[in-house]
Amino acid sequence: MAKYHQVAVIGATGAVGQEILKILQERNFPVADIKVLASSRSEGKKIKFGSTELVVERAKPEAFKGIEIAFFAGGPVSKELVPEAVKRGAVAIDNSSAFRLEPSVPLVVPEVNPEDVENHQGVIANPNCSTIILVVPLKPIHDAAQIKRVVVSTYQAVSGAGREAVDELLLQTKQVLQGEPVQPQIFPYQIAFNLIPHIDTFGENGYSREEMKLLLETQKILHDTKLKITATTVRVPVIRSHSESVNIETEKKLTPEKIREILVQAPGVVVQDDLPALQYPMPLFASYRDEVFVGRIRNDYSHDRAFNLWIAADQLRKGAATNAVQIAEILIKRDLLN
Amino acid sequence: MAKYHQVAVIGATGAVGQEILKILQERNFPVADIKVLASSRSEGKKIKFGSTELVVERAKPEAFKGIEIAFFAGGPVSKELVPEAVKRGAVAIDNSSAFRLEPSVPLVVPEVNPEDVENHQGVIANPNCSTIILVVPLKPIHDAAQIKRVVVSTYQAVSGAGREAVDELLLQTKQVLQGEPVQPQIFPYQIAFNLIPHIDTFGENGYSREEMKLLLETQKILHDTKLKITATTVRVPVIRSHSESVNIETEKKLTPEKIREILVQAPGVVVQDDLPALQYPMPLFASYRDEVFVGRIRNDYSHDRAFNLWIAADQLRKGAATNAVQIAEILIKRDLLN
Repeated sequence: MAKYHQVAVIGATGAVGQEILKILQERNFPVADIKVLASSRSEGKKIKFGSTELVVERAKPEAFKGIEIAFFAGGPVSKELVPEAVKRGAVAIDNSSAFRLEPSVPLVVPEVNPEDVENHQGVIANPNCSTIILVVPLKPIHDAAQIKRVVVSTYQAVSGAGREAVDELLLQTKQVLQGEPVQPQIFPYQIAFNLIPHIDTFGENGYSREEMKLLLETQKILHDTKLKITATTVRVPVIRSHSESVNIETEKKLTPEKIREILVQAPGVVVQDDLPALQYPMPLFASYRDEVFVGRIRNDYSHDRAFNLWIAADQLRKGAATNAVQIAEILIKRDLLN
Repeated sequence: MAKYHQVAVIGATGAVGQEILKILQERNFPVADIKVLASSRSEGKKIKFGSTELVVERAKPEAFKGIEIAFFAGGPVSKELVPEAVKRGAVAIDNSSAFRLEPSVPLVVPEVNPEDVENHQGVIANPNCSTIILVVPLKPIHDAAQIKRVVVSTYQAVSGAGREAVDELLLQTKQVLQGEPVQPQIFPYQIAFNLIPHIDTFGENGYSREEMKLLLETQKILHDTKLKITATTVRVPVIRSHSESVNIETEKKLTPEKIREILVQAPGVVVQDDLPALQYPMPLFASYRDEVFVGRIRNDYSHDRAFNLWIAADQLRKGAATNAVQIAEILIKRDLLN
């Protein structure tokens, strides 16, 4: 008999929080009771969850009493409240970057390294959206041919910066169409009909934190610090779903046919690669889906053991909420809740 | 005393043709008389050129009588009419891809290989827009450190597909904002708030013609068939100016400081690379400019002798019209007209 669980979603009113609530319902997650928590600004707001209406409570340490699974949607709140949730017996699945690189915290993509959940000490980190999307197809290729180097350029949707960022793109787009002036608020510059090669803050080394996440998180998830990666991350005027142009060098040479064969069988991957039929991944068709779409698979003429891929996936779903809920499903299946 | 010339612009009503007319005026090109030619569809249309009004004539062989410089804006007309213009004594500067890879035809970017005009036999080819934008910063780096390999991912504006493509993006954007259905005409799929990893037609090898142009044209312009390149080209919902994420491997190691020093001195390049001041290239600021903007210069942690760049440039100006007019200026300066 299925056991039902006490669940909390922290940051429930944001883009990722809303998506987690939606996916818990879609997947018939065994929820006994659910608490929706957020900052004091959203306290008292009402949120639909199936046929019931939930009232948003303020996220504070005492709120975690009795909670078994706490989904943290991300943001600075995690650093303070994840330890409070764990202290009260919950397992925290955290979408913030606060704990991802801590050696004691598993960083998990269920299709890639599900076994890492076994050693959790109360916190399991959900990787960054662009990392999740990348590692799902990288993993089976790494297993088959040992990846040596990855050069990735991203094309990231505005919803990765939250719901206000979507509103900003839509507002600015209207303003540009009507010839009105644009006042950037969320993004540093106009994003409508523009590109911004700047996601998160820049470090001393010239890389943005988003770019460094792609490097460090991918190495941790694939358990391979020798796997070399470089990244350029770019915000594009797309509402939903991130895309990535990926160049991969392997130890062992792979033909495009072999790569296709590997990816067709890979969990969580859909190969869309039929050029005469104009079939290739695009944000428009990846949105509201849980898979990572991979196409444009071809040999790289500039290197004997390299090839190119083009991928797209819904970064709010597989890149965040779906991945978090999948982690919780593994915890239940493997009986790893407290 | 400056000599004035008989000029024709073929495809004068299109996006690139219009831009050529604008740039001829801006740069005070020594025009004695100018003919504007186009398909029969545009015959009789009136076009402003400074204080005069020009009437569009149908592009046909006899129209080139007496013409010294014929700017072909691009498209299938070139294949038929470039030889006719040359036969009648004109030098043709051709923006189509028809003659670019012919060994007897110089393929010229004035900041990179101006000397190649010397050997022209009547036709000088203007490279593809994404190639021009790339080779301007590549050239000084190649001279300093011998480039071995380039991995490039493009972010290409819709105006690269002509004026109707811009109209399509604007119309679709309005339709999406109003919740109306979208009917793609120019692009194979909706481009508003989407990305399409498909520019020009696909070949048997899985590469698009746009991607192959980046390979083959760059090698020809830099006179180096050992320089290896791979490309993924993507259409983005930006009206104007192409961007490129570029990973460059050199024979000799370069520091970011040295690369900056090289690029600051490079003709046609503007370095925009001050991260604390949020300074980096973007289509929004590259548009209506003639320079190639380069930034996000940083070491690549995945390779000892590689680094990353992010570039943006107005592909209708430097990527097409400005480059064509610059070629004509060299022809005049070097006395290479017939």
